[in-house]
Amino acid sequence: MIQTPYLLFLGDAPDQLAAKVAQGVRDWRPDNAVGQFRMEGCGADLGLPDMDLAAARAAGAKTLVIGVANRGGVISAAWKKVLVAALEEGFDLASGLHNRLRDEPDLLAVAEATGQALHDVRVPEVSYPIANGVKRAGKRVLTVGTDCSVGKMYTSLALDRAMRARGMTSTFRATGQTGILVTGDGVPLDAVVADFMAGSVEWLTPENDADHWDVIEGQGSLFHVSYSGVTMALMHGGQPDALILCHEPTRPHMRGLPDYAVPSLEALRDLALPVARIANPACVVAGVAVNTQAMDEQAARDYLAKLEDSMALPATDPYRFGAEALAEALGTM
Amino acid sequence: MIQTPYLLFLGDAPDQLAAKVAQGVRDWRPDNAVGQFRMEGCGADLGLPDMDLAAARAAGAKTLVIGVANRGGVISAAWKKVLVAALEEGFDLASGLHNRLRDEPDLLAVAEATGQALHDVRVPEVSYPIANGVKRAGKRVLTVGTDCSVGKMYTSLALDRAMRARGMTSTFRATGQTGILVTGDGVPLDAVVADFMAGSVEWLTPENDADHWDVIEGQGSLFHVSYSGVTMALMHGGQPDALILCHEPTRPHMRGLPDYAVPSLEALRDLALPVARIANPACVVAGVAVNTQAMDEQAARDYLAKLEDSMALPATDPYRFGAEALAEALGTM
Repeated sequence: MIQTPYLLFLGDAPDQLAAKVAQGVRDWRPDNAVGQFRMEGCGADLGLPDMDLAAARAAGAKTLVIGVANRGGVISAAWKKVLVAALEEGFDLASGLHNRLRDEPDLLAVAEATGQALHDVRVPEVSYPIANGVKRAGKRVLTVGTDCSVGKMYTSLALDRAMRARGMTSTFRATGQTGILVTGDGVPLDAVVADFMAGSVEWLTPENDADHWDVIEGQGSLFHVSYSGVTMALMHGGQPDALILCHEPTRPHMRGLPDYAVPSLEALRDLALPVARIANPACVVAGVAVNTQAMDEQAARDYLAKLEDSMALPATDPYRFGAEALAEALGTM
Repeated sequence: MIQTPYLLFLGDAPDQLAAKVAQGVRDWRPDNAVGQFRMEGCGADLGLPDMDLAAARAAGAKTLVIGVANRGGVISAAWKKVLVAALEEGFDLASGLHNRLRDEPDLLAVAEATGQALHDVRVPEVSYPIANGVKRAGKRVLTVGTDCSVGKMYTSLALDRAMRARGMTSTFRATGQTGILVTGDGVPLDAVVADFMAGSVEWLTPENDADHWDVIEGQGSLFHVSYSGVTMALMHGGQPDALILCHEPTRPHMRGLPDYAVPSLEALRDLALPVARIANPACVVAGVAVNTQAMDEQAARDYLAKLEDSMALPATDPYRFGAEALAEALGTM
């Protein structure tokens, strides 16, 4: 568990896109973001107060989050100076970089000397159990996609927010690096050893109050041959009561797999439901979330209306039109 | 890849069952088994020549395989003496023990000094790629089970043997510890990191001659919530042309999951086939393998005959009645 709130380190990010993890924290957990730390030449700006380390400490920040991709895959000397100073000032460090903080001998040595924590969120920090399949109290909803990268994390975060706005109790459960940095907690599922995948999802979504919802961030797709095993572990470890089907209708083929067509939402429903019902016979499909980015507004509204009709389910683009229809559907369960 | 042939180390195994990995090598790859090494008090006997290290070296043995469960989870001082001597004599060591050879400082030091290899087959030795889903030449058959531990490895080994006996070219592809020690090669799939599971199966079953069959050892079950993600990676990484359904009809519930009923063979077929066809649209179910151990011979024959009739597939108990019917079905593909 990463200590919040954060000082968001933007380093020398060339542009806003390079800072998209920090942007995710800013958008979805603004209370976690005390300020931003920008270096000379930084081209990103989250609209947060610029702070140095001392000011951020005074404002209560506990962890410096590296919310930016680093250039050339190395942690530069310029970054190092800030990171070491942050440890010395009493910050923990958290990172979703491919190269790990703990593989940097100087950072490791200073962290050990100061007693501060280094969180590499691509690496599991917990010894997960083997899944036991025992039915847990509380409710769970899982986002499942026709493909990878169709908006499952965004849909999950938007749904969690919409459910809270309706007065429902819910918790977003992160299963990827960005989601973990946004919330400070979660399971980096793609880095978990095979035998413990489903168990890590059970661990992440424990027994809870009967009316509490876990909103579980999906990964991969049952139809994506590279990652379908990860998706399967979410279906069975999460034992969802409800699925939200996620889709991007203009994609020419499965991501990274030019020979594989993207399945229809109906095909996803027809495979995902029997798979989910192995773990939870009461599971239903509660709605559809579509990334309509490539359509003009009228085309998007027409597409969603047609889907609602043909699938008899609420359908929305959570980014463009909000997730309320999905939250409402879950509210009746 | 483990160097063959082997000297099979039975240590002080209390009984035959404790030596079941060694028994597997003896039964399925007799050419790999030069002899057995038994210590004082050993209660197991594979019917192989008893050899000391020098005799086994003279007979060509390259690796000492620890084909036995160790008592109390520790590698005893008595074992150590033999293992160190084996390294000094020029043997590699291979083990499927839970406690790893490389975690023993003395074995590690001697192995480094002598240049011999330590193979812990529960630990991946390869950096597997992410699966790319590209269609590969050659044919593949995968065993899938209604549950874990219903005879998938045994069925795969028996099928491989029956196919060779018919003059077909085939390779047994091990995905678990016992299978890896039997053949000297394979992927310890349950220990692979999630993102690389399907890629490790692609790596294990590469492009081959058009008429060559890989017989892929299945793991887990699509219906076993603890391990279904591992099974899924086999379905999609292996892109099988044919599935053999494996079943144990007298089991009261899924292994280790008292609240989960074992599915019917029809339910397995109806889920496994659409899943497999995502990676290989031409995939078919080629036959059924049943563990009839708990039935008398007439009951077993009646059960299999009924299955053949109701499922319109060849059905056999490969241990009791041979795998020829399954090999014959694949021979027509």
